Amino acid sequence: MAHRTPVVRSRTLDARVGASVVLKPESLQRVGAFKFRGAYNAVALLDPAARARGVVTVSSGNHAQALALAAALHDVSALVLMPADAPAVKVAATRGYGAEVVSFDRYAEDREELLAAAVAERAMASVHPYDDERVMAGAGTAALELVEDAGPLDLLLVPVGGGGLIAGSATAVAGEGVRVVGVEPAAGDDVRRSLAAGERVRVPVPETIADGQQLPTPGELTWPVIRERVAAVEPVTDDEIVAAMRFAFERCKLVLEPSGASALGALLAGRVPLAGAERVGVILSGGNVDLERFADLTARRHEM
Amino acid sequence: MAHRTPVVRSRTLDARVGASVVLKPESLQRVGAFKFRGAYNAVALLDPAARARGVVTVSSGNHAQALALAAALHDVSALVLMPADAPAVKVAATRGYGAEVVSFDRYAEDREELLAAAVAERAMASVHPYDDERVMAGAGTAALELVEDAGPLDLLLVPVGGGGLIAGSATAVAGEGVRVVGVEPAAGDDVRRSLAAGERVRVPVPETIADGQQLPTPGELTWPVIRERVAAVEPVTDDEIVAAMRFAFERCKLVLEPSGASALGALLAGRVPLAGAERVGVILSGGNVDLERFADLTARRHEM
Repeated sequence: MAHRTPVVRSRTLDARVGASVVLKPESLQRVGAFKFRGAYNAVALLDPAARARGVVTVSSGNHAQALALAAALHDVSALVLMPADAPAVKVAATRGYGAEVVSFDRYAEDREELLAAAVAERAMASVHPYDDERVMAGAGTAALELVEDAGPLDLLLVPVGGGGLIAGSATAVAGEGVRVVGVEPAAGDDVRRSLAAGERVRVPVPETIADGQQLPTPGELTWPVIRERVAAVEPVTDDEIVAAMRFAFERCKLVLEPSGASALGALLAGRVPLAGAERVGVILSGGNVDLERFADLTARRHEM
Repeated sequence: MAHRTPVVRSRTLDARVGASVVLKPESLQRVGAFKFRGAYNAVALLDPAARARGVVTVSSGNHAQALALAAALHDVSALVLMPADAPAVKVAATRGYGAEVVSFDRYAEDREELLAAAVAERAMASVHPYDDERVMAGAGTAALELVEDAGPLDLLLVPVGGGGLIAGSATAVAGEGVRVVGVEPAAGDDVRRSLAAGERVRVPVPETIADGQQLPTPGELTWPVIRERVAAVEPVTDDEIVAAMRFAFERCKLVLEPSGASALGALLAGRVPLAGAERVGVILSGGNVDLERFADLTARRHEM
């Protein structure tokens, strides 16, 4: 049901990095991000009777649209709780896929309580954006396809937010000798700190342009997978992300949102030690950015 | 040797058009445009002894880079004659693929004479950007792949400049019941007029943002193929092209140059009668536009 996104290569990128680089543009995935893979898998794996009662989540990001489409494709209802200050375009897009959107005040109301109430009152199945093994497994099919289509890799770079994509990806390529490295915003390096501490560390919600990665701590279920399977997590700055957005636009003709360009940004900035890796895979996780914001971010170097 | 570019779909596009639409983004092709297909094919089909003496062309556009790369991949030299006022970035890109670039004054010197001199003095093989059957045949593989990957089509929309892409595409799908329709800038509708007149018509070099389609008359060799195999050619305005560039960016996450968006622009603007077509293919011919020009064109409606 998910698109098999293509493998994209760039001679310029290879020359700059000094390795053979293959990009996996999940920006070309349904709903414009890898999130469709996990959301669809979660809905598909529900018991049919449970699925018929519909699904619910809290999200203002790509998962909202992904779950809405996954539910629509299964002909079941979806309820998405969104903060009242979520961008109107995202609310409209989620409604466009047929979901019911309920707004809440993110400063006055507790999202977990609202979610629990929806689950209790309407008997809907909750599908978390990342802390769900079905979601992680679905997300990992991006890495699986990349290795199937591009051949063996020495190094795989994956953006890290809550950790669903990297947990699934690292599991998908486990045993194949691939060094899996995560990339997260330098302003919020909770996963890197967690790896160093050996336990989940919480940081303030990071100020970064990478809105898909503004999370203060690794997920409860993604964390043990990350600890076991991810070799390292490297930080990337907003300036480096913007440089990667420009590079992807001009050299690869791809539109990437900031989070979607983060792993490429770290690679281009030399933040990831290649350690002899000759074949490098990079997951470009999404492309949901409107033209005005894209033009604004790339017109001048962004300073936080 | 060419990338097999993916098939891209958009639910929003289907809904707007009222048909099932499949896009073929040649922006993701090597050198960022369909031109690589024809240039590579031409070089590959040269007699090895002739090929060893190198290839030459006159171009300031995507064909320059395409021939440079095609020659490099065959380990032979390429000479590209470029107008002295060609954008520095295009000169640099063509040199970056290993070609020798010789500038000429487009107002004082005759490009055909310069080309003839290069062919005579250096015994190089000339590869025309479109008036070459090997180039047309190579370009047509874009349509061939689209039909192979997406299934049968009722209607295929193809941007028209010199006519190499549409001549090759129409030939590739001949006999499959596909109505092939070309799209050219309204400011320079030489091919539409030629079809109406039954012979090649020449117009002034059109003022349009679609720099890949600024040609005053159909090619000598492409014309008979177009007359035989193309059902109609429809005009598209610069504003409609810009709207398609925006649509491709925001909905499909694809970067398109103006010419590359022209067929999509005509479809979105309702300029192409569907005549009951349920399955519509659109070739997006290229994505070579720098970020500043893209932002400038899409920031406001362009008025010629």
